[in-house]
Amino acid sequence: MTERTRLRRLPEQGSHRREDLHAVLDAGFVCHLGMEVEGGPMVVPTSYGRSGDVLYLHGSVASRTLRAAKRSAPVCVTVTLVDGVVLARSVFNHSVNYRCAMVFGVPELLTDEGDKLAGLKTISDHIAPGQWEYARFPSGKELAATTVLRLALDEASVKVSEGPPDDGDGPDGELEVWAGEIPLRTVRLDPVADPDLRGGIDLPDHLRDGGTAPGATPWRVLDPGRR
Amino acid sequence: MTERTRLRRLPEQGSHRREDLHAVLDAGFVCHLGMEVEGGPMVVPTSYGRSGDVLYLHGSVASRTLRAAKRSAPVCVTVTLVDGVVLARSVFNHSVNYRCAMVFGVPELLTDEGDKLAGLKTISDHIAPGQWEYARFPSGKELAATTVLRLALDEASVKVSEGPPDDGDGPDGELEVWAGEIPLRTVRLDPVADPDLRGGIDLPDHLRDGGTAPGATPWRVLDPGRR
Repeated sequence: MTERTRLRRLPEQGSHRREDLHAVLDAGFVCHLGMEVEGGPMVVPTSYGRSGDVLYLHGSVASRTLRAAKRSAPVCVTVTLVDGVVLARSVFNHSVNYRCAMVFGVPELLTDEGDKLAGLKTISDHIAPGQWEYARFPSGKELAATTVLRLALDEASVKVSEGPPDDGDGPDGELEVWAGEIPLRTVRLDPVADPDLRGGIDLPDHLRDGGTAPGATPWRVLDPGRR
Repeated sequence: MTERTRLRRLPEQGSHRREDLHAVLDAGFVCHLGMEVEGGPMVVPTSYGRSGDVLYLHGSVASRTLRAAKRSAPVCVTVTLVDGVVLARSVFNHSVNYRCAMVFGVPELLTDEGDKLAGLKTISDHIAPGQWEYARFPSGKELAATTVLRLALDEASVKVSEGPPDDGDGPDGELEVWAGEIPLRTVRLDPVADPDLRGGIDLPDHLRDGGTAPGATPWRVLDPGRR
């Protein structure tokens, strides 16, 4: 734990347990990558995957920036899952329920072809298990045009905010005001085939929704949530 | 437009039109705020609201950091809405459909009580219209304990990625591989009352779901999406 990952506000919500970190990272697939560009911070979204205690980031959106940025420049990778809006009796106690992981470090810009493939497979398996084996394998040229970053989960923290508002047991609890949570979830809609798709090609099984029970779906993006 | 907001990759997806910027900002309610802390970037999620060409950020999560950070320190505020996973015929052409707004600038830490109230009302109205009038008004003490940032939308850009994969008209279009999009949406579940809620208090009308038709719901967090 470093000064930076010390949980300053509401430390009771914080965690440094590795399994909590993994759980949040595994529930999302788009992170926000922060780095310094031209003397100021820049935050870009990108997709990622986790393998053990390593995070692989797809550098597409940020690739020019990343190449332009100094090697060995520090970054902050933040993954946030918004679970609900907390409606309190007082304006002051309103909040958002969320799970958030922050990872600090100096990412490695992968150059080795094997490393890049391992990173891309991790990202692909994370977002849509089965696609790596199903879709056409990357060519050498395509691989060269793809930026992949590797970041160790050495310096990280997790913060989770959940449950009802906490103004029910004070004087505000007597107010004639409804309080509770409106849960939010990310769901997938029915797949939309490419209008250019050749006839006679069905949606493969690995892209079908496996159901809504936690663990039953091959789609992590569904994120069945914490309840 | 500055060098920083010039859209370098896939400029055809980019936009500098103000109404596009507003539309993306209005569809979300949690942003990622990037700033420099202890010599490196730090990215934290926080809620926000827009009023005209001004963004108000709730500084709760970042308040200690923000107070510690230099006044007149530059930030980057990024709002990302993930609309779907794009499944292509080749691994290389896989992507994510999204809308993303990036705002650069030096935020103002509000100190005037009237300014703070205006900012908080904007955030409250943005997330849950009607709550500001319904819930208990902030006390002077609560207001003093709340951090609100104001950031002008002077330097900003928007990027939108949508539609099917683009490898249908090349040689990969002949492959026996399904291609298309799995749309993702954020939906609200049924409200969950605080277990400590006093009896006899019904969910107020302004918190009820107004329906699924775009424009019919008072809940912007529902984000009916682009289709």
